[in-house]
Amino acid sequence: MTSADLVVANCRQLLTLAGPIPKRKQSLTDVGLLEKAWLASCRGRIVFTGQEKDFKARVRAEKNAVHIDARGLVGLPGFVDSHTHLPFAGSRVNEFRLRLKGYTYEELAKKGMGIQTTVKATRRATKSELVRLCLSRLDTMLQNGATTIEAKSGYGLNLKDEIKQLEALREASRKHPVDIVPTFMGAHEIPKEYRSRKSAYVNFLLRRVLPEVKRKKLAEFFDVFCEEGIFSLEDTRRLADGAKWAGLKVRIHADEFTPLGGAELASEIGALSADHLINITPEGIRKLARSDTVATLLPGVSFFLMLDKKAPARQLIEEGAIVSLASDFNPGSSMVSSMLFVLQLGVFLLRLTIEEAINAVTANAAFALGRHKEVGSLEPGKKTDLLLCELPDYASLVYHLGINPIRYIIKNGRVVVKDGRRL
Amino acid sequence: MTSADLVVANCRQLLTLAGPIPKRKQSLTDVGLLEKAWLASCRGRIVFTGQEKDFKARVRAEKNAVHIDARGLVGLPGFVDSHTHLPFAGSRVNEFRLRLKGYTYEELAKKGMGIQTTVKATRRATKSELVRLCLSRLDTMLQNGATTIEAKSGYGLNLKDEIKQLEALREASRKHPVDIVPTFMGAHEIPKEYRSRKSAYVNFLLRRVLPEVKRKKLAEFFDVFCEEGIFSLEDTRRLADGAKWAGLKVRIHADEFTPLGGAELASEIGALSADHLINITPEGIRKLARSDTVATLLPGVSFFLMLDKKAPARQLIEEGAIVSLASDFNPGSSMVSSMLFVLQLGVFLLRLTIEEAINAVTANAAFALGRHKEVGSLEPGKKTDLLLCELPDYASLVYHLGINPIRYIIKNGRVVVKDGRRL
Repeated sequence: MTSADLVVANCRQLLTLAGPIPKRKQSLTDVGLLEKAWLASCRGRIVFTGQEKDFKARVRAEKNAVHIDARGLVGLPGFVDSHTHLPFAGSRVNEFRLRLKGYTYEELAKKGMGIQTTVKATRRATKSELVRLCLSRLDTMLQNGATTIEAKSGYGLNLKDEIKQLEALREASRKHPVDIVPTFMGAHEIPKEYRSRKSAYVNFLLRRVLPEVKRKKLAEFFDVFCEEGIFSLEDTRRLADGAKWAGLKVRIHADEFTPLGGAELASEIGALSADHLINITPEGIRKLARSDTVATLLPGVSFFLMLDKKAPARQLIEEGAIVSLASDFNPGSSMVSSMLFVLQLGVFLLRLTIEEAINAVTANAAFALGRHKEVGSLEPGKKTDLLLCELPDYASLVYHLGINPIRYIIKNGRVVVKDGRRL
Repeated sequence: MTSADLVVANCRQLLTLAGPIPKRKQSLTDVGLLEKAWLASCRGRIVFTGQEKDFKARVRAEKNAVHIDARGLVGLPGFVDSHTHLPFAGSRVNEFRLRLKGYTYEELAKKGMGIQTTVKATRRATKSELVRLCLSRLDTMLQNGATTIEAKSGYGLNLKDEIKQLEALREASRKHPVDIVPTFMGAHEIPKEYRSRKSAYVNFLLRRVLPEVKRKKLAEFFDVFCEEGIFSLEDTRRLADGAKWAGLKVRIHADEFTPLGGAELASEIGALSADHLINITPEGIRKLARSDTVATLLPGVSFFLMLDKKAPARQLIEEGAIVSLASDFNPGSSMVSSMLFVLQLGVFLLRLTIEEAINAVTANAAFALGRHKEVGSLEPGKKTDLLLCELPDYASLVYHLGINPIRYIIKNGRVVVKDGRRL
């Protein structure tokens, strides 16, 4: 008999997402559906999923175990948000208003708005202000289903403030149940001080900031905005080499606004993920499909920037790429705090099927963070990160828009949200 | 001194939407913004909006008055959802899956799916089942900001079941704080029994059902689906004449899939609203602009059916039409329960400005229901229907996606939702 300190009984539907990760093509159509399912957890890890009969034969609930009656509820793994710019200060609502008047994101960036606005505000903010902002945003993201969240620096763009952002993430992570995966993204933009001396900034990142990030063990990933006018393919390669040398894994902002070839580069250098891909080339699609680099699509950006063009999600899947979805939560191009909404945008904007989109916000997103042995599916040994939704069927996660159907959120085996309230 | 039994103090921003209704063009850019504002209510009606100084000079709070500290909150009128198909049974999630495989809404309708599926389920449902469904949906819609909701029959399509739907609405209305405005829409579709005898069905509606609706005082409005293959312009005119004779006001589903000229007809016959308008003609736009017929746009449909084509919102506003936004909540073409999301779609899909969109879900939506003397703005004498949102500014209602920032909902002067919970 296995002991359990948490028992979820009689789930109307339980999506286990069980099976090998990453998932491509056909395996993306499977969500590991169990009907009338039971799940048991012990010390934060799943010990059982299956039917009542097997549960009773194999699991013994401890005396003070938590019991959840999940009749009428649909269960699935907590969402993994593998791309966010969480620790920023300030708002970009005024820039948003200008965009509604017809200015493009690139035009506003040239006017010194865009990322630079957030850099100013984030540099001014204290670490504890950033921690407070992160904690409040983590609450919102959790309530909308995310239980693991990647978070990037990249609004400091100098030694002090990049470190400050990453330290704020570490502190927020200690205070909040959501798991944070930290990414150092000093190569998010070229700061004003270095505008005409880009290679000096690249050197500065490599020689001054990266060693400090490494010494303090502040990041697991390195990310770079590979884009025309920002970091070239050549810059990106240099930075990625340096990052790998410092022990960081690499992810790349690739082919967002221009088809620079970031996807090709990402697959070549073994980046864990190439993100955005709105303007990916046919060659880029082929290369990603033949690699283990995840194609992380961020449909919130197309929606938020009102772009007609979207990432070619269907083509990526048909050719065999590992597709994932993330929020890109940031104040300029995707002020989207809900992975549930991202899941829906995956279907309505990118034309994924419901099952593909669910895989893309769970199993494949976990793979994009190298966390697929810990989270992303409901299988014995993995973290008990579980959402229980009041819905007639799992398809209604996408079908019914504008609501938050999540009743319980269980993180590391502990109920952290009940009836929409943080406990 | 005026007495108050509810005081909302120190609202960061209060959008009063004050001023003449309906609003066109320039007046759509104004949301009646007050900063650090106070609002007082007595017996369900607003008695004061303004600054603290004037409040203290003119209002006296009663002994047991409710006090809300609204520092950090943005206040605005409860949303008016002027187009919903609330009282239905069954789900159309399977049809939704087929649409994701590429079938169009019209193709599925021809296969006997579409509205007919819901007609079957709704005919089978008892009145009390419908009441229960309505109450649960009203809770969700309320929690997403709607305090007044129009609701149509139209899934009965025979005497007994049309009346059953309208009676369910009446009963739900008695049990729920949200105000329901009932619309008789027997002319939503031609039922199977009458498929080849459309004019017999029109006669049946006029001679058998309408008199019963009138006798029982079950509806305030009449609506008809004026569309190729359903009800022609000629049918629509006959039906609208009959409805007016029976004392009902008219609204029309116009130019949704084909440019049939429903908008022109609506303005000609003085309908309160022409709804959908995705395929409105230039002549239709001109006619609406010169009339008091509201152009009610339903962006949830374009989003949900993944249509590239959207209603020409900007053109309607530029030419001077009264533009409003509604959810079209229904299981087939817009499973959208959130007016907050509709407001956002108004901006992101239809390119309204934030102010235009806010006007379109409050003041102009109230006008579309003939309720603008009661609701739609925060002015003395009107119902105290108020949302208080935890946001830095009102623009963030649109700017920040995927969250529900509504902390308090006050309906008829009573707090009915607090911290996202129904009281």
